[in-house]
Amino acid sequence: MEELHNKNTNLVRDIIIGMSDGLTVPFALTAGLSGVLNTNHLIIVSGLAEITAGCISMGLGGYLAGQTEVDHYNTELKREYSEIDNIPLVELKEVEEIFIELGVSELLSKQVAIQVSKDKKHWAEFMMKLELKMEEPDKNRAAISASTIAVSYLAGGFIPLFPYIVSSNSKIGFIISCIVTIFALITFGYFKSKMTGQPLLKGTIKVALTGIIAAAAAFLLAKAVS
Amino acid sequence: MEELHNKNTNLVRDIIIGMSDGLTVPFALTAGLSGVLNTNHLIIVSGLAEITAGCISMGLGGYLAGQTEVDHYNTELKREYSEIDNIPLVELKEVEEIFIELGVSELLSKQVAIQVSKDKKHWAEFMMKLELKMEEPDKNRAAISASTIAVSYLAGGFIPLFPYIVSSNSKIGFIISCIVTIFALITFGYFKSKMTGQPLLKGTIKVALTGIIAAAAAFLLAKAVS
Repeated sequence: MEELHNKNTNLVRDIIIGMSDGLTVPFALTAGLSGVLNTNHLIIVSGLAEITAGCISMGLGGYLAGQTEVDHYNTELKREYSEIDNIPLVELKEVEEIFIELGVSELLSKQVAIQVSKDKKHWAEFMMKLELKMEEPDKNRAAISASTIAVSYLAGGFIPLFPYIVSSNSKIGFIISCIVTIFALITFGYFKSKMTGQPLLKGTIKVALTGIIAAAAAFLLAKAVS
Repeated sequence: MEELHNKNTNLVRDIIIGMSDGLTVPFALTAGLSGVLNTNHLIIVSGLAEITAGCISMGLGGYLAGQTEVDHYNTELKREYSEIDNIPLVELKEVEEIFIELGVSELLSKQVAIQVSKDKKHWAEFMMKLELKMEEPDKNRAAISASTIAVSYLAGGFIPLFPYIVSSNSKIGFIISCIVTIFALITFGYFKSKMTGQPLLKGTIKVALTGIIAAAAAFLLAKAVS
């Protein structure tokens, strides 16, 4: 049996993050406005403004989140080094306890802890991984993650919007947008479920329902306040 | 020195996720529309439709993501059990290599690996944590996470929107919305930086700039297509 596991997890996760919101929010916003406007012009302007805003907010947001993760890791790493310097016996006991919890005998845990603590760098990295459960983040990932989320949001957002661009009034735009977007949500839900190892039918329905519920809520609310 | 580290990390993270987009996207959308509309009514309808859609998409999205995480963990755990049953020697070697990488001698790593592998449950959990770097997700977290993100988005979104509700035209609404939201972005950026241990000035500027850039882009784009 080959060990494949979760390769490309980050890329897939970023596409899913961007596409989920990209398909859903512009779909719901334009659907909501189509209930109160007869012509498409303002629906298109709103849709484009929303896609731009969402794209920047999520993309730049993703970039900053990635940077923060790197900063956070470094802050905690510094703290571990200072704990190793200031309270080495407490930290050594923690290493022992981690091994005991992993099923290693007390005697052997003591020996292993002493070995781990011989190299300060190893020791600090060990505490990061096993006490704080933090992995060293990839410094280049922030930019890649940001671009992936932004492009996925953009791609997702144009699917519900373009029917309003090509149709003559908001009612026809709304109907085409619903058909196209629900089809896109089902397709996206299917691939998302496949990539994340979820049951296909359940996963697909979840994604499609999220979009439909958001659109229905936006539509009803827009009608109610108009 | 007390060990505080990242307590409440999940809650803070969810508030940040919801509030970041909640402050930014409705701000940018309403700002964009204020450039092409004179009256506030449609800006308010659009803003409410967007907040509803964003709230459901991010909240329900967060809930489903949490559920997926649980499913994904269980799938990988099952795979680890099957690998332990089918290729135990390969898996045992992997345990050894993990310890060697942690700074434990080869001899001791062999001993420790044999101890870890005595209990199948321990062994599988060890592989999850140290080979796949996956922590067992909390089953209740999905619902809490969803509600936190949704409420934070809602709270964030009303800040840029309410100036349009209380003002007589879109120009005044826009000016008040800018002042109030930029103030809110700075406050939010300050607390976010404090909670995540970032440099305060740098962190605050990052958050405020994201919102301002998104709003400026939406404003210019809406003007351009009108």
